[in-house]
Amino acid sequence: MSTKTIAEFTCPAPLPAKDTILLGHGSGGKLSAELVRDVFLPSLHNPVLARLDDQAIVNVQGQRLAFTTDSFVVQPLFFPGGNIGSLAVHGTVNDLAMGGAKPLFLSAAFIIEEGFSIEQLRRVVESMHRAAAEAGVEVVTGDTKVVEKGKGDGLFITTTGIGIVPEGLELSADRARPGDKVLLSGSIGEHGIAILAQRAGLEFETQIQSDSAALHSLVARMLEASRDIRCMRDPTRGGVSSTLNEIAQQSRVGIELEEESIPVREEVRGACELLGLDPLYVANEGKLIAIVAPDVADDVLRAMQEHPLGANAQMIGTVKKENPGLVIMRTPLGTTRVVDMLAGDQLPRIC
Amino acid sequence: MSTKTIAEFTCPAPLPAKDTILLGHGSGGKLSAELVRDVFLPSLHNPVLARLDDQAIVNVQGQRLAFTTDSFVVQPLFFPGGNIGSLAVHGTVNDLAMGGAKPLFLSAAFIIEEGFSIEQLRRVVESMHRAAAEAGVEVVTGDTKVVEKGKGDGLFITTTGIGIVPEGLELSADRARPGDKVLLSGSIGEHGIAILAQRAGLEFETQIQSDSAALHSLVARMLEASRDIRCMRDPTRGGVSSTLNEIAQQSRVGIELEEESIPVREEVRGACELLGLDPLYVANEGKLIAIVAPDVADDVLRAMQEHPLGANAQMIGTVKKENPGLVIMRTPLGTTRVVDMLAGDQLPRIC
Repeated sequence: MSTKTIAEFTCPAPLPAKDTILLGHGSGGKLSAELVRDVFLPSLHNPVLARLDDQAIVNVQGQRLAFTTDSFVVQPLFFPGGNIGSLAVHGTVNDLAMGGAKPLFLSAAFIIEEGFSIEQLRRVVESMHRAAAEAGVEVVTGDTKVVEKGKGDGLFITTTGIGIVPEGLELSADRARPGDKVLLSGSIGEHGIAILAQRAGLEFETQIQSDSAALHSLVARMLEASRDIRCMRDPTRGGVSSTLNEIAQQSRVGIELEEESIPVREEVRGACELLGLDPLYVANEGKLIAIVAPDVADDVLRAMQEHPLGANAQMIGTVKKENPGLVIMRTPLGTTRVVDMLAGDQLPRIC
Repeated sequence: MSTKTIAEFTCPAPLPAKDTILLGHGSGGKLSAELVRDVFLPSLHNPVLARLDDQAIVNVQGQRLAFTTDSFVVQPLFFPGGNIGSLAVHGTVNDLAMGGAKPLFLSAAFIIEEGFSIEQLRRVVESMHRAAAEAGVEVVTGDTKVVEKGKGDGLFITTTGIGIVPEGLELSADRARPGDKVLLSGSIGEHGIAILAQRAGLEFETQIQSDSAALHSLVARMLEASRDIRCMRDPTRGGVSSTLNEIAQQSRVGIELEEESIPVREEVRGACELLGLDPLYVANEGKLIAIVAPDVADDVLRAMQEHPLGANAQMIGTVKKENPGLVIMRTPLGTTRVVDMLAGDQLPRIC
């Protein structure tokens, strides 16, 4: 865990000059953000892209569509609670849902390493179909490329999704306001720990399963409870800490969390201690964070708790005017610490 | 060149059982088609996907959208006439255009190998921006993943596109009818030969440039000339032969080509002879094939020839009732031969 003081963090030392891609550039943390800021945004300069939400909202003949893409490079390809195929569908459905969109159609592009098992490919594609059917979306177009043995790693999948955004709904990471409440839909760190435990060959008394799931119906239930939701995000790569840092930065607000209120399952906490990880930085694939107007926070929280995927939802913090751009954790002892964005490559290829 | 007789090809020997992915599964030819038929279609069973067009046409609130995805794994990443970034934009714009759609928005997902040069990444992204601006589309959303050194190959890009299909327009590879004419927008094989020549370190008197280009404005010009176009396809992986075989099979018609009428530039012909390739199987990235109703074929051809990207357009053949599913080439000597689909992995990673 970071033990920096607020003052130290607000004046970070310059990072050394880098001219090649590091694993950390794919972590979803600080280096990823730098890459987007220094390479993608200046070259593609585009106001929709510049909003840096998990999905673009575009206007097609007066219809607002959500449009999102993600490449999946998770290793291992099969893990407790899912595989790269179901994960690719859930991830893209969730990115649409975080924009408030009803997911409609997916595309799937496969980059396969020569020598990959066709039987495994079939299992992955069947999982995609099941996950898509459960989420009420269709995989309508695709592509397959094959690279030579040693030039890939079994299978990479890129899924892209289209959804439709209800009229008048505006969810974006720059809309958090002082006083807003921070809601979290359930216990954190399960996807990342399931993957890491399998990679490390660790066995626990209770097998830790990935939380990979499609969140669109939970989102629909929340929006029925209130439209006064400022933004929603699924804390995947980089975990809860990176997601909240992005919101704090884009909205120019502080976010204050109550450590006690953040649900972490006992097995995950134990595995994190063993692996030297902070669960706040570990990826989730079936959880969401919502920033909600104060007067509707209780209603939205109750709606979440009534949904199976939000049964353990908690109010975990408050948006503040103080410390804009920073996430501050208040511990049970009353002390505070800065929860920084993920800095390095703690968990490569988690999704 | 294939010298099989028609009888031999209509009764092909069964291929040996295969349980792993071969390079040829990514060739765009016969093995690719088998993989789609045996793995993707049965698992994803979906009528839109089953049409096997280069794009899905989906209905969103009464609006017909074209939706297409492609992964690009070309090697080398930079080649005469373009790079993986411009190619990724052109390829996706063209897949939309082949459905008659006006391209609107793109997403771009990057899978980068650890150690890749950030300067090269910047050059690629800038090329994408230029290509997108020229084609009148915007890259509105993206993703970046990083894999360990040795688990990728520099850079893979997956682009996905959305376009809007004009009302009443129906282009599909199953709509060719006997009597229809086959139009080709220009000389073939330039992209594939540009890549292969660079890979092989070959030098020719005249450098062969990739024909990589966005074809949407050529398509718009053709559709102004007539709506009686049955289908359009860009003959990329697998070349003209594979594209025409797909149309012949999906429309259950024969296609008869006139060898003399197919434009091939002298340098490409020479390089093909040197490399032992048939230009009919070599990839193009800035050409299209259109199947057109007989009474409007001359008008559409003239419209093509008036556009810079169709200046060398030719009528290269006719759709026939005979030999359904086959493509037959008539040579200048009056003999015929079957033009089979690409069978193996002649040109891996050409796009």
